Amino acid sequence: MTTADRGTPGPARQHDFPVLRRITTRWADNDVYGHVNNVVYYSFFDTAVNGWLIDATGVDIRELPAIGVVAESSCQFLASLSFPDQVVAGLALEKLGRSSVIYRIGLFSGDQIEPVAIGRFVHVYVNRLTRTPTPVPDQIRAALAQLS
Amino acid sequence: MTTADRGTPGPARQHDFPVLRRITTRWADNDVYGHVNNVVYYSFFDTAVNGWLIDATGVDIRELPAIGVVAESSCQFLASLSFPDQVVAGLALEKLGRSSVIYRIGLFSGDQIEPVAIGRFVHVYVNRLTRTPTPVPDQIRAALAQLS
Amino acid sequence: MTTADRGTPGPARQHDFPVLRRITTRWADNDVYGHVNNVVYYSFFDTAVNGWLIDATGVDIRELPAIGVVAESSCQFLASLSFPDQVVAGLALEKLGRSSVIYRIGLFSGDQIEPVAIGRFVHVYVNRLTRTPTPVPDQIRAALAQLS
Amino acid sequence: MTTADRGTPGPARQHDFPVLRRITTRWADNDVYGHVNNVVYYSFFDTAVNGWLIDATGVDIRELPAIGVVAESSCQFLASLSFPDQVVAGLALEKLGRSSVIYRIGLFSGDQIEPVAIGRFVHVYVNRLTRTPTPVPDQIRAALAQLS
Repeated sequence: MTTADRGTPGPARQHDFPVLRRITTRWADNDVYGHVNNVVYYSFFDTAVNGWLIDATGVDIRELPAIGVVAESSCQFLASLSFPDQVVAGLALEKLGRSSVIYRIGLFSGDQIEPVAIGRFVHVYVNRLTRTPTPVPDQIRAALAQLS
Repeated sequence: MTTADRGTPGPARQHDFPVLRRITTRWADNDVYGHVNNVVYYSFFDTAVNGWLIDATGVDIRELPAIGVVAESSCQFLASLSFPDQVVAGLALEKLGRSSVIYRIGLFSGDQIEPVAIGRFVHVYVNRLTRTPTPVPDQIRAALAQLS
Repeated sequence: MTTADRGTPGPARQHDFPVLRRITTRWADNDVYGHVNNVVYYSFFDTAVNGWLIDATGVDIRELPAIGVVAESSCQFLASLSFPDQVVAGLALEKLGRSSVIYRIGLFSGDQIEPVAIGRFVHVYVNRLTRTPTPVPDQIRAALAQLS
Repeated sequence: MTTADRGTPGPARQHDFPVLRRITTRWADNDVYGHVNNVVYYSFFDTAVNGWLIDATGVDIRELPAIGVVAESSCQFLASLSFPDQVVAGLALEKLGRSSVIYRIGLFSGDQIEPVAIGRFVHVYVNRLTRTPTPVPDQIRAALAQLS
């Protein structure tokens, strides 16, 4: 597997990611082919990103005046997962803009080095009432420094 | 199949239910055994109840000062469903109390007469801020008259 | 809270359950009211039961000639969970029959003593091809001895 | 909104898609912000693609010797959905290769013309036992002619 297989260049192996989050799979994650359904990988993405943001900022991000809405996401599926695998999600910062944050996410089966999936997850911050774009909140910005 | 197989007595066949709601199954609903996972049946329950409440009351029930929280639910699984089956959920009122509503729900594969599942779903109304029990809102109570 | 609040008598506090399983919540588990949706509790049930069965028997239960299908389940919701809570699921054996197993399940927020939910989960073993009831497999039966 | 906002060029409005599939939203699809969670959009994608394949081929695609596994997917989120919206998924063929099929998918709120999301969904066909790439089955290939 070359970097090209994983979409845009960036971290790919488990030890390349500055932050790792552990997530348990569930029985119902498996589809009729016996593997975790592709949709569930995206649930791992927003669980990893939002869970880390809550921990790293120390605030309930859902109560901030600006909330992160997902503007775009994508995933390259490289290998399969199957319940009861443990999932490790690696987080890295691909780009921090004025009102947007692009995360690069690697999913791993337990402690394996090579990823089962590489994802891209774009948060755009909006005012929670008007839903218009607004700068990335300072607390979020400070936390993101840990991802570079 | 006798009434006893379906838990407490009550409507069981599709034409016994005063309200019917149609729900589409999804690819990921199927589990490794090729059938809709048991957990998903409960999603049909709260989709049918809340969707009907929104339609029947004409208000967004999520914005009322009293919200219905699920205090108890149960399901007897009688036969299997499989994507891409269409699901019909039948709703009936089992009991209306001061602050609680007990629904009886039948799930059907398309227009079949006999149920694939019979459920019980208990809403307790609470003040949305204090989360203490409060009377069933008048709008809800009026709508429930259609279920008897 | 008395035993009556939790349905049938049985273990209720975390230390009363012979087996405990840890499950992580997910961002999407939270519903519009900010709490883990009732449906997800049932996903915790079958994740805890099947995950434990796989670990305790040492075999992939999905490959056995007899598979456990859910015949009935129920849940008493006593308190709320919210992402990013960790969930602990306690498992106990309520009844072992010829072809059925009834589990009693307690769900806990992290290491808290009192349950947020008490559930009942009934597996009936069927031949994986004919889907007719068949005795509980010996491997399962042996594992269940750990639950009493 | 320009074509550039929707990723790669291609159909974007509801009437641009040769096939339309209707999907119902569910109560639990809504997240804490009151909108259908981003993860669920991907469930609409594989539900629309696989449901259409089952209908259009007249065979249970899960029983074919070659199965389609998701190699890559992506989504541009343009507007929000909220239960109890009805979703219409439009399907178009972006590219048909030897062993891969790339779908372009538009998601719409009911009969609205402009999409709430534009997705890309890549199936690679593999032998169901060896999981090695294999040509797109003839039945699938014949059905795909309807998408161009």
